Amino acid sequence: MIKIGIVGGTGYTGAELLRLLSGHPNAELVAITSRSEKGVPVAQLYPNLRGIVDLAFSDPDIAVLGQCDLVFFATPHGVAQGTVPEILAAGAKVIDLSADFRIRDIELWEKWYGQTHGAPQLVAEAVYGLPEFNRSAIAGANLVACPGCYPTSIQLGLLPLLEAGCIDVNDLIANSASGVSGAGRQASVANLLSEASDSFKAYAASGHRHLPEIEQGLADISGTEVSLTFVPHLLPINRGIHSTIYASLIDTDVDVQGLFERRYADEPFVDVLPAGGHPETRTVRGSNFCRIAVHRPGGGNKIVVLVVEDNLTKGASGQAIQCMNLMFELPERSGLNLPGLMP
Amino acid sequence: MIKIGIVGGTGYTGAELLRLLSGHPNAELVAITSRSEKGVPVAQLYPNLRGIVDLAFSDPDIAVLGQCDLVFFATPHGVAQGTVPEILAAGAKVIDLSADFRIRDIELWEKWYGQTHGAPQLVAEAVYGLPEFNRSAIAGANLVACPGCYPTSIQLGLLPLLEAGCIDVNDLIANSASGVSGAGRQASVANLLSEASDSFKAYAASGHRHLPEIEQGLADISGTEVSLTFVPHLLPINRGIHSTIYASLIDTDVDVQGLFERRYADEPFVDVLPAGGHPETRTVRGSNFCRIAVHRPGGGNKIVVLVVEDNLTKGASGQAIQCMNLMFELPERSGLNLPGLMP
Amino acid sequence: MIKIGIVGGTGYTGAELLRLLSGHPNAELVAITSRSEKGVPVAQLYPNLRGIVDLAFSDPDIAVLGQCDLVFFATPHGVAQGTVPEILAAGAKVIDLSADFRIRDIELWEKWYGQTHGAPQLVAEAVYGLPEFNRSAIAGANLVACPGCYPTSIQLGLLPLLEAGCIDVNDLIANSASGVSGAGRQASVANLLSEASDSFKAYAASGHRHLPEIEQGLADISGTEVSLTFVPHLLPINRGIHSTIYASLIDTDVDVQGLFERRYADEPFVDVLPAGGHPETRTVRGSNFCRIAVHRPGGGNKIVVLVVEDNLTKGASGQAIQCMNLMFELPERSGLNLPGLMP
Amino acid sequence: MIKIGIVGGTGYTGAELLRLLSGHPNAELVAITSRSEKGVPVAQLYPNLRGIVDLAFSDPDIAVLGQCDLVFFATPHGVAQGTVPEILAAGAKVIDLSADFRIRDIELWEKWYGQTHGAPQLVAEAVYGLPEFNRSAIAGANLVACPGCYPTSIQLGLLPLLEAGCIDVNDLIANSASGVSGAGRQASVANLLSEASDSFKAYAASGHRHLPEIEQGLADISGTEVSLTFVPHLLPINRGIHSTIYASLIDTDVDVQGLFERRYADEPFVDVLPAGGHPETRTVRGSNFCRIAVHRPGGGNKIVVLVVEDNLTKGASGQAIQCMNLMFELPERSGLNLPGLMP
Repeated sequence: MIKIGIVGGTGYTGAELLRLLSGHPNAELVAITSRSEKGVPVAQLYPNLRGIVDLAFSDPDIAVLGQCDLVFFATPHGVAQGTVPEILAAGAKVIDLSADFRIRDIELWEKWYGQTHGAPQLVAEAVYGLPEFNRSAIAGANLVACPGCYPTSIQLGLLPLLEAGCIDVNDLIANSASGVSGAGRQASVANLLSEASDSFKAYAASGHRHLPEIEQGLADISGTEVSLTFVPHLLPINRGIHSTIYASLIDTDVDVQGLFERRYADEPFVDVLPAGGHPETRTVRGSNFCRIAVHRPGGGNKIVVLVVEDNLTKGASGQAIQCMNLMFELPERSGLNLPGLMP
Repeated sequence: MIKIGIVGGTGYTGAELLRLLSGHPNAELVAITSRSEKGVPVAQLYPNLRGIVDLAFSDPDIAVLGQCDLVFFATPHGVAQGTVPEILAAGAKVIDLSADFRIRDIELWEKWYGQTHGAPQLVAEAVYGLPEFNRSAIAGANLVACPGCYPTSIQLGLLPLLEAGCIDVNDLIANSASGVSGAGRQASVANLLSEASDSFKAYAASGHRHLPEIEQGLADISGTEVSLTFVPHLLPINRGIHSTIYASLIDTDVDVQGLFERRYADEPFVDVLPAGGHPETRTVRGSNFCRIAVHRPGGGNKIVVLVVEDNLTKGASGQAIQCMNLMFELPERSGLNLPGLMP
Repeated sequence: MIKIGIVGGTGYTGAELLRLLSGHPNAELVAITSRSEKGVPVAQLYPNLRGIVDLAFSDPDIAVLGQCDLVFFATPHGVAQGTVPEILAAGAKVIDLSADFRIRDIELWEKWYGQTHGAPQLVAEAVYGLPEFNRSAIAGANLVACPGCYPTSIQLGLLPLLEAGCIDVNDLIANSASGVSGAGRQASVANLLSEASDSFKAYAASGHRHLPEIEQGLADISGTEVSLTFVPHLLPINRGIHSTIYASLIDTDVDVQGLFERRYADEPFVDVLPAGGHPETRTVRGSNFCRIAVHRPGGGNKIVVLVVEDNLTKGASGQAIQCMNLMFELPERSGLNLPGLMP
Repeated sequence: MIKIGIVGGTGYTGAELLRLLSGHPNAELVAITSRSEKGVPVAQLYPNLRGIVDLAFSDPDIAVLGQCDLVFFATPHGVAQGTVPEILAAGAKVIDLSADFRIRDIELWEKWYGQTHGAPQLVAEAVYGLPEFNRSAIAGANLVACPGCYPTSIQLGLLPLLEAGCIDVNDLIANSASGVSGAGRQASVANLLSEASDSFKAYAASGHRHLPEIEQGLADISGTEVSLTFVPHLLPINRGIHSTIYASLIDTDVDVQGLFERRYADEPFVDVLPAGGHPETRTVRGSNFCRIAVHRPGGGNKIVVLVVEDNLTKGASGQAIQCMNLMFELPERSGLNLPGLMP
């Protein structure tokens, strides 16, 4: 059994790790930390885990976490960078679900996150945890930086096109929409049911923190700089991200549907719909699958890629466990072979 | 492996059987039938099952179904009674999720369902599939009549009180509310999102088909006739039933919280909340758990029992699999040890 | 034109007053106060009012408010009692939407609200603003205590039965459910969309602050003490209250449907549905109507009354304006003749 | 008073006409027709209108409709073209909310709608009812073709840019999302609450019937052919359209915010948000306002325009009444000066 610690378990990604790991055949949960909820049973905050998870929150303790085989950080940005060095030094592997180790350009990170980076020396060592692009590097990593929710959907939607070199990398648009759980479990007026339900809006249309991560990831895939216009929106749903991606073909002879089907044929969690399909976020609710469809409206040169994922699962905790499976040489679907909850 | 057939798999309870059985370690799905969707892959109707369930719908065929160890009927009322006799005769066991074999009084059944019963000779043989009350009978049954969704929640909410004989059986009120999936996957104006969302209403306040089933079940538990006022309501949610049950104590010295805790201490799927709790339907979303809390407002003689379950899981397909586990001497939680999906 | 001030306009009842008064032919909005949002245009917090309401929030100023003809208090409990005496002394009339002046028994108020009452001398003078019961007193009042949202629905549902003396006043049950806007516009985890949507729960099942107000109102109507079990629930909708009320007939010969129809025949905002009806909260969304249906399940002695209202309109700000119309001898429907927004 | 008939009043746009006209000071409702619901009171289908609208549905009768001053058609496409000629001949004016008279190219209409046009001679005479572009023509029209819901939002979002000639008309993208009421009040599985709620999807990504209407409208505005990629999505909300529009500046010196503010300064129903804003659909729920914000992410050459409207109001029935006000020389805001319902 893999001994596992979770730092920062009170948020939704922490709770999702617990939900998924409780059914994982190789995972043994050793500790889950929260300073604010110390001593409180996890199942008190998340009553869905009553009878499933018996742990209580504890203070973070390097002595305990260092003994783990693997420590997940499900903390707000800026936290993991303070503790990860010690935990790695103690011999545990680390998967960080926050933004701390995603961006290789330290200055760029500091600009978007408004603080000095606390462990810049580890950034180069961190492996970006997108298995569909980085599988072997993840398998050998000690520190994995798990991708953000929006970036996962957009990179998976553009990967076959960028690898094939058939689109204009200077004219990419990602129109994305996320469920409210993406905003976390913080008290806020804007995310009250009476403010966010039965409504829809864009936000951060002039610039969002995920943009540099996405552009870095797309550049890594394509081997060249890319330019993306990214507009996120808030959906009145719990879970789910939908990205509608627009790209211009520079090679109009390419069989785009075939391109996607071939590229993802062996991927355990990427499902390319038959031609003409439209993926629905509910089909991946609570599941690690990402579903993709490709359209070419009117047979013109614009390609429209539709991507859905669960922001808490493939967009965060499920992907983190997929990385764990790779790091510990387990079957990649271990503990993750759950269909979406429908209806 | 237990060879399993499902008759009538296009509805929500059929899809829920598939979702749960796909993760059951002892289940082998052999056939799923639908006349209207013959030849269509299951995953086309339920894209959440893409990559999980490969079967296509087929015509119902006694030769195939009779070879199964177990056949589930997930059909509208009136269908199972036509086919079950043959399937039992062929040696398969049957769990019927419809209302066909729930009510022992044939006349009463015919009055509420407006048709002649097609297999009255089997009604006495059928075992009512409420494990918390009928565990050993279910284990030995060939034909199980799986309880309705509302009846499950109300019987579990009243069982400890009725067994203890501490309430007035002639003054029971169940104020229940169900998610829209309870109405099934039929096209209808009333259940359109634009009609049912952001709204709430009672329905069938003058009389609902589940009433005779509930009263029969409560009478079986208490050993005497009972009288219930039952008012169902429609919730603008997908899944979930919440029953708020009102009873009058005739023994005011009883420790009601202790009564519930003791009665359900060993039940794998009934979770009694600590005193003062309020169960939320979301905590059992997609899970087979039933959560219960008990209140005694102002310390008076009225008891308020709050019960939540997922109408498609503990209220239908999950409970059916719980019965299957009993009938095939498997651990009762096999394939069902899933926490609710939260958020 | 009636010069109007609103104290505490940042909450939902304040915004609802603005929405309704902006279309009232006799209302002139003079001031709307908020210490925290001083200087901020109202339409910045409530963009639906852009182009409709030009006012900005200002500090509360007795000099300004005292010059008004009428001041509404849309403040949390405990606030109005500090300022109302001065405003009345300055010659303005007051309608308080909070709980400050609703309960005549000062000790009882102090027990449930956990503080000393700041203006007990005014409580006896305050008129309870339920027009259907108190019309003439409201017309002559200087200080009106506007009923709570739950209390309005329950009193209107029981009024005809209590006046007719045909039910057991010691065995009343009100099972109520409210949209999330009833919890106000305060940041809170419990009312986040990702916590409250697609779910349902009871709360305060052991005792809720509205209980003493409801029991006082029902006693006033019936002329005798009453005993009520009241369980509120949280609906995953924006607006709307649904109360399902259970009472036991002591006179089983009464024509209950006729009783309701006659009692409310001339009421401008109470709509009794035809026999067998089930009111939906959406039919009163944004409207001052209250819709009621009555059932007698199985022809027994239990009466089930179904009541819907919009908690912010007939349950708060609409009713307040209905009282204003009475106090200023305007047609009772002035500014309130809006149908519910459907779908 | 303007005598008004409505043909096809059982759908949502018919009901919305009734809701709005019931509060219009100059409108007198004479007849509302429906073959299927003949004799049924309107308020039985739409209980929000109980006590507000007393009419019952009647068979369409040219004798009655021809006597009206104005007849609205709220029928599915293909119906109005059969009856409009007679009604115009009888001397009534007509506003058609369907697609019958929107597209000037008859062949194009017939291709997208799959039928022969029944009144091609009237198409050239029909005036496209977008007041912000066509105000004076509408004022003089006898037959107005009311724009579609998506087309209204997209044309209003691009109008200032196209008139200014500052964007590339061959590279336009409209990523739109609509509430479920846009699909009408027809029984369907796909639009059940249990299918469409808590989910999001694109549809018709390869081509949607509104595309030719939008491209015609944009070409009229810009005076040249335009090319648009249009992808609609289904929102799990009742009402509301949100269009996120992407265009490439060819003149990067233009003050885009100022352009929008100046163009719409005198428009009664178009509200340009301050720079940096993000309109929410709920702010226009039930209202005729359209709210717009403009962004230029990273100061690059991509312009992002965010537009919200209520699909049933500014996207259909409200806009139709705005046209009526113009045709009958009434103040443009008559009967339409309602704020959005928030929360």
